[in-house]
Amino acid sequence: MLDYRTMDSSALQAEQGRLRQAYDAFAKRGLKLDMSRGKPAPNQLDLSMGLLAMQDYKDRDGVDMRNYGALEGAAEVREFFAELLGAQPGETIVGGSSSLNLMYNMVDLGWRKGFSGCAPWGAQDKVKFLCPSPGYDRHFRISEDFGFELITVPMTPGGPDMDAVERLAQDEAVKGIWCIPVYSNPDGYVYSAETVRRMAEMKAAPDFRVFWDNAYLVHHLTDEALSCPNMLEACRDAGNPQRAMMFCSTSKMTFAGAGVCAMAADAANIEAAKNYLFAMTICFDKVNQLRHVRFLRKEGLAAHMQKHAALIAPKFDAVREAFERELAPCGDIACWTSPKGGYFISLNVLDGCAARVVQLCREAGVVLTGAGAAFPYGQDPRDRHIRIAPSYPSAGELAAAAELLCLSVRLAAVEKLLA
Amino acid sequence: MLDYRTMDSSALQAEQGRLRQAYDAFAKRGLKLDMSRGKPAPNQLDLSMGLLAMQDYKDRDGVDMRNYGALEGAAEVREFFAELLGAQPGETIVGGSSSLNLMYNMVDLGWRKGFSGCAPWGAQDKVKFLCPSPGYDRHFRISEDFGFELITVPMTPGGPDMDAVERLAQDEAVKGIWCIPVYSNPDGYVYSAETVRRMAEMKAAPDFRVFWDNAYLVHHLTDEALSCPNMLEACRDAGNPQRAMMFCSTSKMTFAGAGVCAMAADAANIEAAKNYLFAMTICFDKVNQLRHVRFLRKEGLAAHMQKHAALIAPKFDAVREAFERELAPCGDIACWTSPKGGYFISLNVLDGCAARVVQLCREAGVVLTGAGAAFPYGQDPRDRHIRIAPSYPSAGELAAAAELLCLSVRLAAVEKLLA
Repeated sequence: MLDYRTMDSSALQAEQGRLRQAYDAFAKRGLKLDMSRGKPAPNQLDLSMGLLAMQDYKDRDGVDMRNYGALEGAAEVREFFAELLGAQPGETIVGGSSSLNLMYNMVDLGWRKGFSGCAPWGAQDKVKFLCPSPGYDRHFRISEDFGFELITVPMTPGGPDMDAVERLAQDEAVKGIWCIPVYSNPDGYVYSAETVRRMAEMKAAPDFRVFWDNAYLVHHLTDEALSCPNMLEACRDAGNPQRAMMFCSTSKMTFAGAGVCAMAADAANIEAAKNYLFAMTICFDKVNQLRHVRFLRKEGLAAHMQKHAALIAPKFDAVREAFERELAPCGDIACWTSPKGGYFISLNVLDGCAARVVQLCREAGVVLTGAGAAFPYGQDPRDRHIRIAPSYPSAGELAAAAELLCLSVRLAAVEKLLA
Repeated sequence: MLDYRTMDSSALQAEQGRLRQAYDAFAKRGLKLDMSRGKPAPNQLDLSMGLLAMQDYKDRDGVDMRNYGALEGAAEVREFFAELLGAQPGETIVGGSSSLNLMYNMVDLGWRKGFSGCAPWGAQDKVKFLCPSPGYDRHFRISEDFGFELITVPMTPGGPDMDAVERLAQDEAVKGIWCIPVYSNPDGYVYSAETVRRMAEMKAAPDFRVFWDNAYLVHHLTDEALSCPNMLEACRDAGNPQRAMMFCSTSKMTFAGAGVCAMAADAANIEAAKNYLFAMTICFDKVNQLRHVRFLRKEGLAAHMQKHAALIAPKFDAVREAFERELAPCGDIACWTSPKGGYFISLNVLDGCAARVVQLCREAGVVLTGAGAAFPYGQDPRDRHIRIAPSYPSAGELAAAAELLCLSVRLAAVEKLLA
């Protein structure tokens, strides 16, 4: 056993020397690896090459997808995404290649036009957004870009701390919350039924919106396909039908950044969204929409996602095994999540050590997501969280990166304990 | 000769009877045709089926277009559009399928962030946009959606009336002008070198922007490939480098609404645009970008556009011939433009008759662009302008539609003269 907390300073100094030597040796290997984003690996992208072979351009009603029209998506395409999101086709809009863009649009709709008959957010004194943290930096960035106040809400394995959310949502200035309900980014948590119910039922401003980014809803890593209740239905049952705005994307089913996104919401929101989008564009890329739906139906979505899982689950396992082998024996210097889906693992190191770990890794050739990125304004109050994105590197690269990461976590911990 | 202006009322009444009979007979044919938008015909879309066969996904630097990254577009793709727009690759951003969307984004950038260090438009007392009219309804709609005051500027065959533009731009509240410099929508006019120079040189607010929508820059209908000077260069020469924002799109080169768009502007604008877009999305669809560039380079853009011209120029000719045969003999009840490119013809009927003509056509089965659509707020002060979009119908449908249109113009004129 190497429990760092029980070692005296001379033992720690000896350990530091050993770690430093191993780290320096590693740095000389000249590894160059970017693990900063949750990118699919090339062999995952290869799974969808059949998409590029698709030449379909007429939907089942004979409508030509190569021409203008159908701002909300062709009927056949809306049906596919409606089923995926758990909504009716008439409650669904199919967009371009970026669900983040669609979320941005809906925030902008709140900002310029307002929701539910309320004044536009831009005309209200102050707007606050709840940011369950750690969370997705690009969500937080949107609300920051609009000048909203970002309020950190702690994450739990069952979703955001609902006591905190219920309390904060009483403030009329709180207009939204960012949620990744299934295999959350970065913890890999799945919201509980109680979280969904409470979020749907709680008291909140009439123009409060739940931005329900179901980015990983079919992105299982195990045979246990986790899910969580439908937020739109829950909000309807609770008498707050306009509260939910649900999003999804094929970016991690087919091609990252070249897929298709969709949203679903209650009729009033969809009507407002269509009016908003009408001013913005003629239509989205229906050729890409149709070929996606035809390809994914042909493959079978679940079967297709299992092929992804077969490629990335071993990478998640490799990281976890490295952590268990290299970090667990050192005592409580680190803990990590064990997601059953999604794209990320959360690693928490000793308080005050995350930035140092990221620096050590970078200086030895591995770029991780910046420390603090998963928190509002990029600031982790405890400087302990690191987002691990295991999907992109090859198995060999990942083994090396995990080795470096563990070395860096240990080295930073020893430095901290000696300080 | 049938000069309506010289006919007495009994002759007009006899003519009205004949026209009404012909019109009623036509209405019984049960034609159903939508000519309201400038849509390519199916045989034009067929010209780009090679695009769907393209399976390229690595750019010349080996970058995988199927994955995230390159918000501003891959180098190879930026080069293509930079050349098309007449700018440097570093001054060019390649976007998604909608140039209208990109223009909307740039208006929103002015609205939320501001240009050239000025206060955001949204924080200024009043914002006005100049709308050369007749013009493109969807341009005007964007500025209307933001609550700007739309100011009509008369169009001339050499572009907007520059005396009016220069005078109006002195007002610091005037922040933009919508321009379609080559084969303007709907007149088909090409801006003169003098127009470009004066617009670049004139006194205007520092955050005044020329929205230079070069939608039809290679969309020639004759061998005479008209062009107009580069607005970005002109603005640079005039010491107003940030004034120009140039846009283009492949929507009418390949697939309408499923193509690729691009913008070019001075470095400071591009930097601001990239920061803006970064908050909005991860990246645009680079798979579609690359296959467009590879396909259009392989085809040769000019040769490809000649194939389009071969299909649509005869349709423009057919409309013009119908006008000359059916309307010219009736005296000055109508006049029309004779574009050498683009997608539209402007037809001006007797003052106060446009809405009636559109109604008559609709009731007999042909939907035209709504009367007034080409003017701010959808209101043609003289109710005389009709936008003709000849591209979509087949030759047979177009002949029928032109026949109905001419009948309707004559009938409305007779009604007016008798009233």
